[in-house]
Amino acid sequence: MKKLILTLGFLGIFFFVFQQKTNAQKHATIPTKISDETQQCIDCHAVETKGIYQEWGTSKHYRAHVGCYECHKAKKGDPDAMEHNGFLISVIVSPKDCGQCHTSEVAQFSESHHAKAGMILGSLDNYLADIVEGNTDFFGKSALLVNGCQQCHGSAVKIGKDGNPTADTWPNTGIGRFNPDGSVGSCTAYHQRHAFSVEQARRPETCGKCHLGPDHPQKEIYNESKHGIAYRAHENDINIGSSKWVLGEDYTAAPTCATCHMSAVRTKDGDFIPATHDVGKRISWNNRPPVSIRPEISDKKLGLKKMAKVKWETRRENMKQVCTVCHSQPFVNNFYVQYDGLVNLYNKKFGKPGVELMKIVYKNNLITSQKFDEKVEWTWFEIWHHQGRRARHGASMMAPDYTHWHGLYEVAKAWYMDFIPELKNIVATNLKSNDAKKVTGAKELQVALNKMLNNSDHAWFIGKMSNKEKSNRAKAQKEFKERYSK
Amino acid sequence: MKKLILTLGFLGIFFFVFQQKTNAQKHATIPTKISDETQQCIDCHAVETKGIYQEWGTSKHYRAHVGCYECHKAKKGDPDAMEHNGFLISVIVSPKDCGQCHTSEVAQFSESHHAKAGMILGSLDNYLADIVEGNTDFFGKSALLVNGCQQCHGSAVKIGKDGNPTADTWPNTGIGRFNPDGSVGSCTAYHQRHAFSVEQARRPETCGKCHLGPDHPQKEIYNESKHGIAYRAHENDINIGSSKWVLGEDYTAAPTCATCHMSAVRTKDGDFIPATHDVGKRISWNNRPPVSIRPEISDKKLGLKKMAKVKWETRRENMKQVCTVCHSQPFVNNFYVQYDGLVNLYNKKFGKPGVELMKIVYKNNLITSQKFDEKVEWTWFEIWHHQGRRARHGASMMAPDYTHWHGLYEVAKAWYMDFIPELKNIVATNLKSNDAKKVTGAKELQVALNKMLNNSDHAWFIGKMSNKEKSNRAKAQKEFKERYSK
Amino acid sequence: MKKLILTLGFLGIFFFVFQQKTNAQKHATIPTKISDETQQCIDCHAVETKGIYQEWGTSKHYRAHVGCYECHKAKKGDPDAMEHNGFLISVIVSPKDCGQCHTSEVAQFSESHHAKAGMILGSLDNYLADIVEGNTDFFGKSALLVNGCQQCHGSAVKIGKDGNPTADTWPNTGIGRFNPDGSVGSCTAYHQRHAFSVEQARRPETCGKCHLGPDHPQKEIYNESKHGIAYRAHENDINIGSSKWVLGEDYTAAPTCATCHMSAVRTKDGDFIPATHDVGKRISWNNRPPVSIRPEISDKKLGLKKMAKVKWETRRENMKQVCTVCHSQPFVNNFYVQYDGLVNLYNKKFGKPGVELMKIVYKNNLITSQKFDEKVEWTWFEIWHHQGRRARHGASMMAPDYTHWHGLYEVAKAWYMDFIPELKNIVATNLKSNDAKKVTGAKELQVALNKMLNNSDHAWFIGKMSNKEKSNRAKAQKEFKERYSK
Repeated sequence: MKKLILTLGFLGIFFFVFQQKTNAQKHATIPTKISDETQQCIDCHAVETKGIYQEWGTSKHYRAHVGCYECHKAKKGDPDAMEHNGFLISVIVSPKDCGQCHTSEVAQFSESHHAKAGMILGSLDNYLADIVEGNTDFFGKSALLVNGCQQCHGSAVKIGKDGNPTADTWPNTGIGRFNPDGSVGSCTAYHQRHAFSVEQARRPETCGKCHLGPDHPQKEIYNESKHGIAYRAHENDINIGSSKWVLGEDYTAAPTCATCHMSAVRTKDGDFIPATHDVGKRISWNNRPPVSIRPEISDKKLGLKKMAKVKWETRRENMKQVCTVCHSQPFVNNFYVQYDGLVNLYNKKFGKPGVELMKIVYKNNLITSQKFDEKVEWTWFEIWHHQGRRARHGASMMAPDYTHWHGLYEVAKAWYMDFIPELKNIVATNLKSNDAKKVTGAKELQVALNKMLNNSDHAWFIGKMSNKEKSNRAKAQKEFKERYSK
Repeated sequence: MKKLILTLGFLGIFFFVFQQKTNAQKHATIPTKISDETQQCIDCHAVETKGIYQEWGTSKHYRAHVGCYECHKAKKGDPDAMEHNGFLISVIVSPKDCGQCHTSEVAQFSESHHAKAGMILGSLDNYLADIVEGNTDFFGKSALLVNGCQQCHGSAVKIGKDGNPTADTWPNTGIGRFNPDGSVGSCTAYHQRHAFSVEQARRPETCGKCHLGPDHPQKEIYNESKHGIAYRAHENDINIGSSKWVLGEDYTAAPTCATCHMSAVRTKDGDFIPATHDVGKRISWNNRPPVSIRPEISDKKLGLKKMAKVKWETRRENMKQVCTVCHSQPFVNNFYVQYDGLVNLYNKKFGKPGVELMKIVYKNNLITSQKFDEKVEWTWFEIWHHQGRRARHGASMMAPDYTHWHGLYEVAKAWYMDFIPELKNIVATNLKSNDAKKVTGAKELQVALNKMLNNSDHAWFIGKMSNKEKSNRAKAQKEFKERYSK
Repeated sequence: MKKLILTLGFLGIFFFVFQQKTNAQKHATIPTKISDETQQCIDCHAVETKGIYQEWGTSKHYRAHVGCYECHKAKKGDPDAMEHNGFLISVIVSPKDCGQCHTSEVAQFSESHHAKAGMILGSLDNYLADIVEGNTDFFGKSALLVNGCQQCHGSAVKIGKDGNPTADTWPNTGIGRFNPDGSVGSCTAYHQRHAFSVEQARRPETCGKCHLGPDHPQKEIYNESKHGIAYRAHENDINIGSSKWVLGEDYTAAPTCATCHMSAVRTKDGDFIPATHDVGKRISWNNRPPVSIRPEISDKKLGLKKMAKVKWETRRENMKQVCTVCHSQPFVNNFYVQYDGLVNLYNKKFGKPGVELMKIVYKNNLITSQKFDEKVEWTWFEIWHHQGRRARHGASMMAPDYTHWHGLYEVAKAWYMDFIPELKNIVATNLKSNDAKKVTGAKELQVALNKMLNNSDHAWFIGKMSNKEKSNRAKAQKEFKERYSK
């Protein structure tokens, strides 16, 4: 017996040592000590840029002996290689560099909507930045583009003669940055250098760097929601610095953006869903466009081949697996019925008719083809791009103030007080035109406008509310007046 | 001597045991161990909805052996009773259920303005949600109503055939919810399930779920105020998780919304003011309507009989007792003089004349009786409902940015640049009418407009600033120019 | 050997004692125990205003035996001296009082822009408060002035007959307050009484009391920036309560407003930069006016003689010394190129032409000299004072949403959709005037408008985009459509 134990013990040790070696061989790139090159970097930089040195000292990288040189080293011929005190380095550490170790995270990111954020060039937003708000005085481009759009969407980084990135393209941590080494993205957009704190990356403020403001106030919406309220009360109870951070195992007190959209989950059925850096895997509506569409459609347009095959039903099921860790199935199912209801309301009452009316306007040249030189173009843009998104995003996270007051209230006000009068004015102006085509176009617009206004969604505005609705309203108002009037 | 001690000791023990028993008898409903029924719930739900199980495990309920069944049990015949694995339960836990133990809290709530939040049906806001922003595609009602208004104000919960609440009425945690059991309210609106953390309920974010945004930004106002600043710096110094949480005993470093409006206070005179769930007890202005009124008036309108008898002077005195824990009496008295000054300014210069002018407009049918189909209706609505409230609420908590820039600045801009021109336009249009009544009405409006414009509050706008004011201004501007001009 | 040690030890003790004595002599005003007078204050106030007493008990003042009387004592003849239970005291503790001990802090403050905040009387903002938004019902002044402007800018405190400050001038903690003792400022604007916590003063919310909102949202901008994100994640890692609090020594994880603008720094060269209470020492643009200017120019206008001699280049170098604790020199240099680019874009495209056009309007009396009675005056005011500042401030702290959506997007929308049409309308109206001077003026405005519109910055708006720009746009839009269109 004793022998058996000894033998097993010996085998155990052998296996352990062997295993260690195999691991060591597999992860040969992870250093076992601070490299000589990094030590030389440190010799100066501990003084020269001590903030960087100190923050790195708090990082997991430091604990894994991953230092300056391991990330910043360059190869001869690299477009951003730069001679620096005897070393060949590059200032920009790209996803390609991060991917040496964090292979799957970079792969997931590359398949995501985020990786395409830099493809905004040529869009309406970019037109605003370049032409309407900007000029070409800043190295031939718009200073607004550089200080505004590209800080979220990413620049195309260029390297100057001195080896440093140029001022018109960097500092830049836009999520869809085009890097000199041909890679796309900027991991530091979330993982702020040089502490690379998971805690920081998981907090809602990180996403709020870009997901805020008039056109996509997800941060404000989250803050208003019960999720945000729970987070502020319990942020110290969610184990946010844990390496593992599995919802349902490590915490349940509150979710951050990362929890629901990206992080690991132990489902109610006991399944383990790993964390993902593809933020689209659990999203079942794309509320970006004038009319909300399913994410597989926009993924296809963006050339995201893998995700283009993942239907919204699958993504919704993915999200429901997260929701049901903390919420009952009927709660979750009903929530989605409510959310879909709001999206459908917006789409049908405002989004689709708006798109159709503007198509008729442009098709018939009833206004110039130049964008943003006519009031109606600003009005329509804000209806879908600002106000309509706020309503839809608000509903997606149960934030009633954004759904209503910042959302559909503003949509309706702009629709009835600006959009319709402006379209009527376009009709009137073009009916008087000497150009027969414009007169015909104006008539087409007039017909479409009337059709829309006589639709039951809008008939109230022209005094044609249905009798049923009228009596419902009268009853409700009577009750109200009895309560509130003097 | 020894005997005496022994005797006293014995008596002491006896008394202690007796006291325990008495308490046990008094609180017979509080279980001394986890019930068998709850244990059976747990057997599944610890896995099925582990977030709920885990959060409940952190709660005071758990520590008091109050589990799933104690709150969710239903009686045969209850409208929301539902057979569930051999148990009769209901999904919704209503104030009636909570009130089994938390009797006085529910009673206080029921006497408060909050309990009437669901009575918004038929109001202007509801008209917006139903007609202007919505349609009837969502189970015969407006999806905006469901995702927007009712998420704060409360839905009328209906139970479906499967025993679960229907998707058009739930999820819903609106404060004035109409529950299937006939009770009103939703304790989980503040006390988020299933941790029911007092800490969470006392934090400002909890109130900010609904008290934010363009029409009542109390959360933003608090954040700007010195109270909010102190809270952010000292939130760990205010003993916020304490059961007792008495201002002046447990903390003084910073107040949250709950501190001033609801929580227990040891006054400067040594009196103890208990916590209350009636949020109106310390409020001396109701700034909701177009013209600010005293809270006893609005309480009466809402049918809050008990509070309708509590005059504003009493409520102000209640609040002053809170203020003077940390502030000197002259500070508090002067603050109220300033606050009243701002409310009076708004009421006199904008609120009252606006109400009068709009009354003339409607009385004479100078615009349609249909709401929100004319620009002036949006303008006036925002003046009092959005901008004017912001000014008044801003002053109530000493947040100058909300008082001025988000408040009276916006009021004045809308008043002079939109409201007056729109009213003038209504006059002009109706003067040309073939309807003699309308012509008469237009003249009445014209007279009222002129009277308002010639009032010393507005005379500047028509170039009739008084000479005294002019010379004051000239002097001040001269001084300013000497400082700022080149 | 033993003797030597004994001797050295003796000398050491001697030196220590001597040193103590010297210090004691030097700081003779710092009490070594709670004074009898303060003890008498406490005897009542520990009960009467226990919040004040408790907070003071947590303060460094308490630890230094600096109590009620030391700060509140008054001399006979002081304008705000007040007999109070046998003591002569004043309610207001002014910078003059604080400066008894905190001499250099008060001196630095007095040389800063902040000290001139009360000089707003007579400015456009004040005109708004007094005339447009207000009336004279509140002790002969505008209640809005008291509740709004002066809460940030400071009131001129008056003392009533009872010795307390009057309600129209106090409570007030405006930074540029005029105190009864002739001093200017309000240290409690940041250092909230009575804890005087450095931690609280260093947090961003403190500055956010005033630096927020539509016209200078520095707080919101900071929150969006990477600095703000790092702060929220690491606020417990920055040693914020430390007496020393030297960036690069005590912390590097995140900066607050105070870090960059005021606090002590150990530079990359090892130099020590002490903290300063002159907030302008590190600021290289004054973005307040319609056209951004250099701070030495505005300091001169404000009569800040010392700072008027400190050129912006020096101030920028001061800030760079802070930046380079955490950022590389190329990063910092490039950042400033980007920031300058945005300021220059705003100045050239909108700021300067706007100033010139409005000058022509006023010079020729094309509108009344009365401010804010014409729409164009509100439009132009918001372009530079609200929207244009937001763009510039956004860029100063790398907050793209404020730079673009809250900034130049709003500037451009107002410029093209409101400002230009309103100016054209002024031209048209005045061309029809019987006053020949006005006709001439209208022609001058028309020429200036046309010149502006034909400038390459604005030519797109009148359909005169250059061919080069057109082909660039066409190429970019083609690429975009291929990606996004169906």
